[in-house]
Amino acid sequence: MSLREDALNLHAKNRGKIEINSKVPVANVDDLSLAYTPGVAEPCKEIAKNKEDVYLYTNKGNLVAVVTDGSAVLGLGDIGPEASLPVMEGKCVLFKRFAGVDAVPILIDSQDVDKIVETVKTIAPGFGGINLEDISSPRCFEIERRLKEELDIPVFHDDQHGTAIVVLSAVINALRFVEKNIEDCTVVINGSGAAGIAVGKLILRAGIKNLVMVDRHGILLPGHEKNNLAQEEMALLTNKENLQGGLMEALKGADIFIGVSAGNIANKEMIAQMNPDSIVFAMANPTPEIFPEEAKAGGARIVGTGRSDFPNQVNNSLCFPGIFKGALMAQATKITEEMKLAAAFALADLIKPEDLREDYIIVGPFDERIAAAIAQAVAAKAQEEGVIRSNLI
Amino acid sequence: MSLREDALNLHAKNRGKIEINSKVPVANVDDLSLAYTPGVAEPCKEIAKNKEDVYLYTNKGNLVAVVTDGSAVLGLGDIGPEASLPVMEGKCVLFKRFAGVDAVPILIDSQDVDKIVETVKTIAPGFGGINLEDISSPRCFEIERRLKEELDIPVFHDDQHGTAIVVLSAVINALRFVEKNIEDCTVVINGSGAAGIAVGKLILRAGIKNLVMVDRHGILLPGHEKNNLAQEEMALLTNKENLQGGLMEALKGADIFIGVSAGNIANKEMIAQMNPDSIVFAMANPTPEIFPEEAKAGGARIVGTGRSDFPNQVNNSLCFPGIFKGALMAQATKITEEMKLAAAFALADLIKPEDLREDYIIVGPFDERIAAAIAQAVAAKAQEEGVIRSNLI
Repeated sequence: MSLREDALNLHAKNRGKIEINSKVPVANVDDLSLAYTPGVAEPCKEIAKNKEDVYLYTNKGNLVAVVTDGSAVLGLGDIGPEASLPVMEGKCVLFKRFAGVDAVPILIDSQDVDKIVETVKTIAPGFGGINLEDISSPRCFEIERRLKEELDIPVFHDDQHGTAIVVLSAVINALRFVEKNIEDCTVVINGSGAAGIAVGKLILRAGIKNLVMVDRHGILLPGHEKNNLAQEEMALLTNKENLQGGLMEALKGADIFIGVSAGNIANKEMIAQMNPDSIVFAMANPTPEIFPEEAKAGGARIVGTGRSDFPNQVNNSLCFPGIFKGALMAQATKITEEMKLAAAFALADLIKPEDLREDYIIVGPFDERIAAAIAQAVAAKAQEEGVIRSNLI
Repeated sequence: MSLREDALNLHAKNRGKIEINSKVPVANVDDLSLAYTPGVAEPCKEIAKNKEDVYLYTNKGNLVAVVTDGSAVLGLGDIGPEASLPVMEGKCVLFKRFAGVDAVPILIDSQDVDKIVETVKTIAPGFGGINLEDISSPRCFEIERRLKEELDIPVFHDDQHGTAIVVLSAVINALRFVEKNIEDCTVVINGSGAAGIAVGKLILRAGIKNLVMVDRHGILLPGHEKNNLAQEEMALLTNKENLQGGLMEALKGADIFIGVSAGNIANKEMIAQMNPDSIVFAMANPTPEIFPEEAKAGGARIVGTGRSDFPNQVNNSLCFPGIFKGALMAQATKITEEMKLAAAFALADLIKPEDLREDYIIVGPFDERIAAAIAQAVAAKAQEEGVIRSNLI
């Protein structure tokens, strides 16, 4: 059978992919009297006296809401909340499988920014964290910013920051392998949507001095009429040499090319203009910006894609379970830039420098060390920065 | 150890009572490619083409939101959403244990009716049903009415209708036992909050001709300044003989006394005024309106309470798992009065008339037939009434 048939059968056979189970026995009247009335009144009374006890007596502290409005789902676009549910259930499956974190989809029947923010705030008391998912740009920036400001639990837009963390991790190891310093490298990012901007911001924070962002209108320049607010902000921070033109012009003399845009927009002639030992992460899915073979033909030393059937898969799912696990373990009130950097280095450090190869820059998703390593690094950073609840349970 | 210590330990040991698990394997890259990208795009595309397919490819059709604002929790009152979470997780445990229904708590950080209605509507696409829980009266009436009008999935306020169904079931069997016809009986309900009014409405629909409602101001009378809208409506439907006074006056010549009010408000002198073979369900918790021994001393033939340590426990948890199971099985768009009646008779019919005893009017919570019997009756009634989705999956 085809992947399509297999996937539809899997989903239909089980009517979806998640279920909710009891962690406590309910075999007899005594069990019932503890888990339900009258015994259940006791933890209720404790929490009523001291609200922080909700982290002790309930699952709130391990429960993440996977929130979407269905406006930018995979490569499918604005398919609406119902049609996004298989992806959201999939995220919940990965949260549990890779990090032991409980997660539940919350589908928002509105694409209005104020309404999304208000709704998430209103249901926040039941959750330990909010994972924003597949919300289109630029709305996603304002939604995340406002929720981070107004909630005291971690809020994380995975399409932005999960991607950025995994890309940075791959960049760190690629540079270790080709023995270049991050400060000396020029990076070109093609794609200036949610993921591209997040990658750009994190990679600047990691030490990159020279970054050029490109989108379908060409190199991102300040004051361009098509810039949204986030793009204008990035335009002011990037393109130090004031380059003009498109991807071809941007790649001349660059060390690293990161594609978070669309399939087949680069070719080997473009790659050939890059510096020696060039690094290419072409992550458009399912068709990358340039296929590995062609990138290699253009002179790329290290190539990664978003696909599992090529080496060096730069895969979102490597990061989000561990980063939430760490934030929840530490009872962090937010996920900071420093916590994201710590996550990227923890992921990179899973491969010893001497074990790095051109086709082994990043670990595969079933390396069982991933979530624990990221979680530990993220929790330690949260404690170091003091962005944790004041009354830890 | 005490019940209090046992209950606190149980909740703390497990950090709450529910978890979210995968129904599909995620052991290798092939599994991942079906449950997550790229395979997950296939069910998304199907649902985007035909929204009803969300019932086929996801868990929506078996997932209930247990929604509360924490304003009327158990006997504890307005303790807020966080402190209500142990009860809500308990409901979710019972949904799964007794009916295989998945349920997740949704805590609403507002007691404003408009905001609660709007929030639940906004997150409704992910759920197959809405169980309203522990929302104070009279706000609960408007919230439920508006959500029922505006959503196409079942909405059910368990404190009202779950109680009403189980009480009616107990009344049916008690009348079978004492061989009285429901049409000939006078019923007194003490307590005119959410549960009392719901019991009153359902019992009228079941055939009771003469009902007297009482609350702390005495017998419910039309035009009383303390009446809320729901109480005024009931006042107009009840008290055919225009009785005046309190519980003592109401009980004179009554056949059935139903207490959904507060502990120790009745005594044996009151019960002694009732007709022969009188029936008393005193459901205030933990202290009933009158203890069974005193009710018997006053001449009651059949006595039930809300407690598991006396015979005939009238227990909410008997109903809600099965009624949602039936509504979800049938893909019902609402839970109608006729479906509630069907649930009450299905629950009563679990005891053959010849097996009824004074102390066995209602089955215990671990009778494994309960949820299936109620679900089957509810689903059949939904189909008969045609209140089901037009495109059944």
